[in-house]
Amino acid sequence: MSQQLTIDEARLWKTFDVSNAIGHIAERGLCRLSLTDEDKRMRDIFVGWAKESGFGVRIDSIGNIFVRRPGSDDALPPVLVGSHLDTQILGGRYDGILGVLAGLEALRSLEDRRLATRRPIELVCWTEEEGARFSMSMVGSSVFAGIFELDKVRAMTDGEGRRLGDELRRIGYEGPSPVAGHPIDSYFELHIEQGPTLDRSDIDVGIVHGSYFVRGFDIRFVGDTAHIGPTPMKERHNALVGAGYLIAAVNDVGLKYSADDAKTTVSRIECQPNRYGIIPDRVMVTIDYRHHDLDTVNRMRAEIDEAIARAAETSQTKAEIVRSWSFGDEAFAAECVAVLREAAEDLGIRYRLMKSQAGHDAYSIAKIAPTAMIFTPCVDGISHNVREDIEAARTLPGVNLLLNAVYRHANRP
Amino acid sequence: MSQQLTIDEARLWKTFDVSNAIGHIAERGLCRLSLTDEDKRMRDIFVGWAKESGFGVRIDSIGNIFVRRPGSDDALPPVLVGSHLDTQILGGRYDGILGVLAGLEALRSLEDRRLATRRPIELVCWTEEEGARFSMSMVGSSVFAGIFELDKVRAMTDGEGRRLGDELRRIGYEGPSPVAGHPIDSYFELHIEQGPTLDRSDIDVGIVHGSYFVRGFDIRFVGDTAHIGPTPMKERHNALVGAGYLIAAVNDVGLKYSADDAKTTVSRIECQPNRYGIIPDRVMVTIDYRHHDLDTVNRMRAEIDEAIARAAETSQTKAEIVRSWSFGDEAFAAECVAVLREAAEDLGIRYRLMKSQAGHDAYSIAKIAPTAMIFTPCVDGISHNVREDIEAARTLPGVNLLLNAVYRHANRP
Repeated sequence: MSQQLTIDEARLWKTFDVSNAIGHIAERGLCRLSLTDEDKRMRDIFVGWAKESGFGVRIDSIGNIFVRRPGSDDALPPVLVGSHLDTQILGGRYDGILGVLAGLEALRSLEDRRLATRRPIELVCWTEEEGARFSMSMVGSSVFAGIFELDKVRAMTDGEGRRLGDELRRIGYEGPSPVAGHPIDSYFELHIEQGPTLDRSDIDVGIVHGSYFVRGFDIRFVGDTAHIGPTPMKERHNALVGAGYLIAAVNDVGLKYSADDAKTTVSRIECQPNRYGIIPDRVMVTIDYRHHDLDTVNRMRAEIDEAIARAAETSQTKAEIVRSWSFGDEAFAAECVAVLREAAEDLGIRYRLMKSQAGHDAYSIAKIAPTAMIFTPCVDGISHNVREDIEAARTLPGVNLLLNAVYRHANRP
Repeated sequence: MSQQLTIDEARLWKTFDVSNAIGHIAERGLCRLSLTDEDKRMRDIFVGWAKESGFGVRIDSIGNIFVRRPGSDDALPPVLVGSHLDTQILGGRYDGILGVLAGLEALRSLEDRRLATRRPIELVCWTEEEGARFSMSMVGSSVFAGIFELDKVRAMTDGEGRRLGDELRRIGYEGPSPVAGHPIDSYFELHIEQGPTLDRSDIDVGIVHGSYFVRGFDIRFVGDTAHIGPTPMKERHNALVGAGYLIAAVNDVGLKYSADDAKTTVSRIECQPNRYGIIPDRVMVTIDYRHHDLDTVNRMRAEIDEAIARAAETSQTKAEIVRSWSFGDEAFAAECVAVLREAAEDLGIRYRLMKSQAGHDAYSIAKIAPTAMIFTPCVDGISHNVREDIEAARTLPGVNLLLNAVYRHANRP
């Protein structure tokens, strides 16, 4: 059994004290959307901390920040750890942030002890993980992994029509380093679970070996405006009614498979002209569905497709899918999972193997490098909510696991 | 049989040529929301036309414009005709506008012939009939009839937070004349039907003796934000799902009673935070339902109430009605209906008695004075749509009916 390292708990929570104040909203909430002034403030402080500790900082052209602690064989690709510092619009203090600040603390802990590693270790803060501002999630990591094209991503706009590329430049995080051509050895991401499984158990951490199959799409119903009074029911083409039938049916699909842990969500709707007295002619809805089993997710999709056809028929509207996406199909790397299991066993940390149900930057990176994740409990599984919370005692095992696993993995022959 | 008067058709369409250009949008559409620059332009031109013809103009403090042709016994209360010049956001050229321009043409036709009337005749343009900007409809006529309070109405805001009272002053239509204390003899409103009944028949006009019972409310679903991934289906409180179930159920109620000509509509929705990745916690929906029979409209409401309870239960959200309204419960005056029927018979105009399904300023005025309406056909019954259209040959009988009925009624002993 190798030497067991522990992080400096007080120093870790001090970084949270700073982060918790940047974009603070109601209760314990944070609203720190990517590339806003708040995001810039947090990034600046994070870069400052990294430099104070003597680490190198590199920023790529999509704004991903890489903090580097060199290896004794510094030409080897780095072991990468990280997550994101941006939040949802009604987000919490830990989603993403824990992974970055725990990573910083891990680097600092190695530095405290002057423990060299054979490979360099890099800590990354990815740009726009949440998709809360520019409507696509895992943006920085997806560009890094070659899944999204830089130019297309730079042209994406927020709700006020501001381009991601312009905002990146405005806050000073359009870095000089190219996004591609930066090989990495492996990637480890620590994250709160965002569900109740760990919190309701006596397990310390989840070692994440793969993910749910996540699918989603934006669908537009197109009808026709008319007067809400005299227009006969049978001659109406109410796009909002089409959306309503679909929302209800999609939720029914989720409920139907919920015992087997399926999820369906309708999170977003836009209605035009959206005025009293006039039947709406254009409604856009965002649908998400996910399951751990590919056959089931495909069966859910078939049922959702039937629901779309029924909703369009009953409302006498046209339904058209305008954008769709999928992620989470990659299993994580057996070698990374094994490193985490060994380290957990050596540390006496109770773990369970689990699949991630949320999207994470790790999904992107898994396409280009061996990857695994660590989940820590969050209170009642609440996340994407201003009441999101963690307990120190239930979080530290995961942070120490990250430190020891990464140290071990970076030092392997 | 008394003398039959006819309006000057070419002069009437000339006023439409001017109106059609003010706020013109796609196809034959108009967007002339109340108290906008477009509304001001149209009002200014309308006032100019009235003055050119030698009529008096009075503007009250809610911006209603009264054009007056004196009577030989000028102390008698006036016979009032009119409608509105504002439109829906995707409105047409005739909804409301026909009633005002036909009224102007009727006054001009009497003036051409120097035909005196015992009572004065006034033509009114009511402020914010559509409710497309300030979210309440029939505003000017409702203040006039004492249904709405002037101060409350002045404080209403549009989607950008601008107050109705400020906008009224900005466009110069906060008139010096008090809204109340202006007795009227009777009120006649000519309007396109906005439904297909007349257009699909060989009847010339509808003589409107009453209205549908119209009910509506804004309802808010309150849930809780959460992550769309790991949050178990059974622990979700998705406000948009609550709204979706209700939208579907409300439409089902409308379809169920549609053979008996019931209508249900969901026209408006607002969702927060309305972002991908986060379960929405607050959704507001606007529901409208209407029927010609009071028992049926009450039965529909009971079914909608059950649907609200079910939607809230299934979505695990709270549903609260935040505002509700009703209108259309007044039957129109038998004496006014009789005047219209007699005039139609004298003119050889084919008519049918019908109830109005749309809201009209006449509903407000019916509470304070004898009132009736004339409907003229519109193509395919299309209204609140940029394709709204009328045919001259199918419209003139109604305009001539207005002229003759009003002339006769203003001259009665």
